[in-house]
Amino acid sequence: MAAIQEPTVTFGVLNETTTDESRVALTPDIVTRLRKAGVSCLIEHDAGIAAGYVDNDYEKAGARVLDADAIIAEADALGFVGRPDEGRLAGIKPGTWVIGMLGSFTDDQYVAALSKTGLVGIAMERLPRQLSSAQSMDEMTSQNSVMGYKAALVAANAYGSFFPMMTTAAGTVRPAKVLILGAGIAGLQAIGTAKRLGAVVTAYDVRPASRGEVESLGAKFLDLGLDFSAGQGEGGYARQLTAEEQAAQQAAVDEKAAGFDVIITTAKVPGRKPPLLLTKAGVDGLKRGAVIVDCAASELGGNVEGSSVGTQVTDGGVTIIGAPYLSSEVANTASNLLARNVADVLAHFVRDGALTITPGEELDDALVVAGRPDSAAQAGKA
Amino acid sequence: MAAIQEPTVTFGVLNETTTDESRVALTPDIVTRLRKAGVSCLIEHDAGIAAGYVDNDYEKAGARVLDADAIIAEADALGFVGRPDEGRLAGIKPGTWVIGMLGSFTDDQYVAALSKTGLVGIAMERLPRQLSSAQSMDEMTSQNSVMGYKAALVAANAYGSFFPMMTTAAGTVRPAKVLILGAGIAGLQAIGTAKRLGAVVTAYDVRPASRGEVESLGAKFLDLGLDFSAGQGEGGYARQLTAEEQAAQQAAVDEKAAGFDVIITTAKVPGRKPPLLLTKAGVDGLKRGAVIVDCAASELGGNVEGSSVGTQVTDGGVTIIGAPYLSSEVANTASNLLARNVADVLAHFVRDGALTITPGEELDDALVVAGRPDSAAQAGKA
Repeated sequence: MAAIQEPTVTFGVLNETTTDESRVALTPDIVTRLRKAGVSCLIEHDAGIAAGYVDNDYEKAGARVLDADAIIAEADALGFVGRPDEGRLAGIKPGTWVIGMLGSFTDDQYVAALSKTGLVGIAMERLPRQLSSAQSMDEMTSQNSVMGYKAALVAANAYGSFFPMMTTAAGTVRPAKVLILGAGIAGLQAIGTAKRLGAVVTAYDVRPASRGEVESLGAKFLDLGLDFSAGQGEGGYARQLTAEEQAAQQAAVDEKAAGFDVIITTAKVPGRKPPLLLTKAGVDGLKRGAVIVDCAASELGGNVEGSSVGTQVTDGGVTIIGAPYLSSEVANTASNLLARNVADVLAHFVRDGALTITPGEELDDALVVAGRPDSAAQAGKA
Repeated sequence: MAAIQEPTVTFGVLNETTTDESRVALTPDIVTRLRKAGVSCLIEHDAGIAAGYVDNDYEKAGARVLDADAIIAEADALGFVGRPDEGRLAGIKPGTWVIGMLGSFTDDQYVAALSKTGLVGIAMERLPRQLSSAQSMDEMTSQNSVMGYKAALVAANAYGSFFPMMTTAAGTVRPAKVLILGAGIAGLQAIGTAKRLGAVVTAYDVRPASRGEVESLGAKFLDLGLDFSAGQGEGGYARQLTAEEQAAQQAAVDEKAAGFDVIITTAKVPGRKPPLLLTKAGVDGLKRGAVIVDCAASELGGNVEGSSVGTQVTDGGVTIIGAPYLSSEVANTASNLLARNVADVLAHFVRDGALTITPGEELDDALVVAGRPDSAAQAGKA
């Protein structure tokens, strides 16, 4: 980022409106960072409070604390953890940039609404993660990392015994056997945290490359005796399996799962129904007292059959925790990382003191889902 | 324990009646162990369910599952996590042994009620912990160990950032600074668990000997610049400080506390009001987002001024968790350890196939608070 004296771009952040969202897209540390990039910051009253940042922290860092209407009136760009709902979109002045997780992979109507209102949509979910220049903008990675850490803590906290082996005068308690299903960023962080706590950790992922990553963390890779070659999907995420592969995988995982005390599933596929990794048969095969944390639980289903958001205990005494909001539960740090990601995306587009899209530039082409200069031209032609 | 073929002593365990108690004083593993010591076991329907042990597990181990009245009618000894209330005492047949945490240090009336009903009271809280032969009976140690582990997990789970240092593309997150006040069994286990999770851990205890124990776990000992020599109390517990010492300690701890993100207090003194280790001034000096877990919170007060059972957030954004039931929240393993402690106490008293008190024997003299053969003789004389 270039060092610019006078801010020429104004960035605003509003209260997140989604229930269960404690994070905020701007933190005081990042206000300072953005000022150096020529961006001045506005934040809505109490927008950071659930993440542990008070208005005064923002003011000390050089942001102005305003109400939502004043921010919308003044800001060149608005940043979100999620996205503003369509009702709010209508109140934003044309030409404003909207940066957030816009759901552009699955929600064409929303993207159309952005375009219709004349907004520029910057979709964080479209970041080309493999570009090294994009790493500090990678919200999926930073938030999944937080999620994996928290998933292991939640599992340890719900489990009725110890994660580590404990040798006491009243006997030795064996360490917990933990199985991590899905060894992406979240899964690897869950492996690391469960191992820190002293559990014996095994992990599984359909991507063959994940075996090495799992083993490099000192965990065992679960051998299902199945071959899902070419499992690596685009953008570093797991591809969806075929129905036949899924059935074979499910049967094998269900069978192997019975030997574990704790299962953490982390196989989210952005914007799609999460793959089923543990069926009811698998859950029913678990020991009484076993704990499952399903990070993919959602209204689209989860990695575990029958899981839903919240905690339930099966007739067989298995606790299933459907936990899609785990990164939000570590709101202070999750926000700081996320705000850095959003700020670095914003700063990427600040060229010669103005927000500028350069068609043909790889990041620009990937991230801009509404308000492209070329698509505007096209719209004029149509 | 001698190997006896035919059980000659019958041990019964009832449902715990206290709210917030998930533990049980007998587990299937221990049923097997007691059979080998010549003790047959009875357990009330569903007494183990909250700890993850079902009736069938007990039956498979060789226990009989009965209702409470049948157990009380048949048992020579009854085991408890806590103690039966006075109403229930009245229904127990004279001569029955009651083994549990009887509160004998503070509740003379309860001990008198045991005696009046003609029961033998075996007070687990009076175990002479320093005897090596008593180590496997040491419920205070086993349960405080569970408590310390859980306290660190609860703190980590409530904290809005990471315990470990994390280096990510979006910046480095510094490790949490954790302060453990009270470095007994629970404190040492909390130190170990917080360190496992990657936190930077400091601890403090009024007992000078604790410095070496703290440092041997790789934690730093908090130097208050104060001298509380001769701080070691009887039975290995911290003695109560004088009012003057407490004031000096409080001022120093309050001042030092401000530098920490997480504070865990574990200074319980059995049956007495817990020492105050952090005043309101200390709490108010903490950073927004700081987390306190007070394991000594109770109706008698806690280690932290203003703490109460449950979670509260101060105006300054400090979360205070008053958590006296932490060992009960790891009910499966806590019960297994506790049941072993109780079983070993019981087995200690099984001599030549009968429950026998030997006056003058160190353990017997310490543990028997009601129904001693000598006190019965004395009562006859009086």
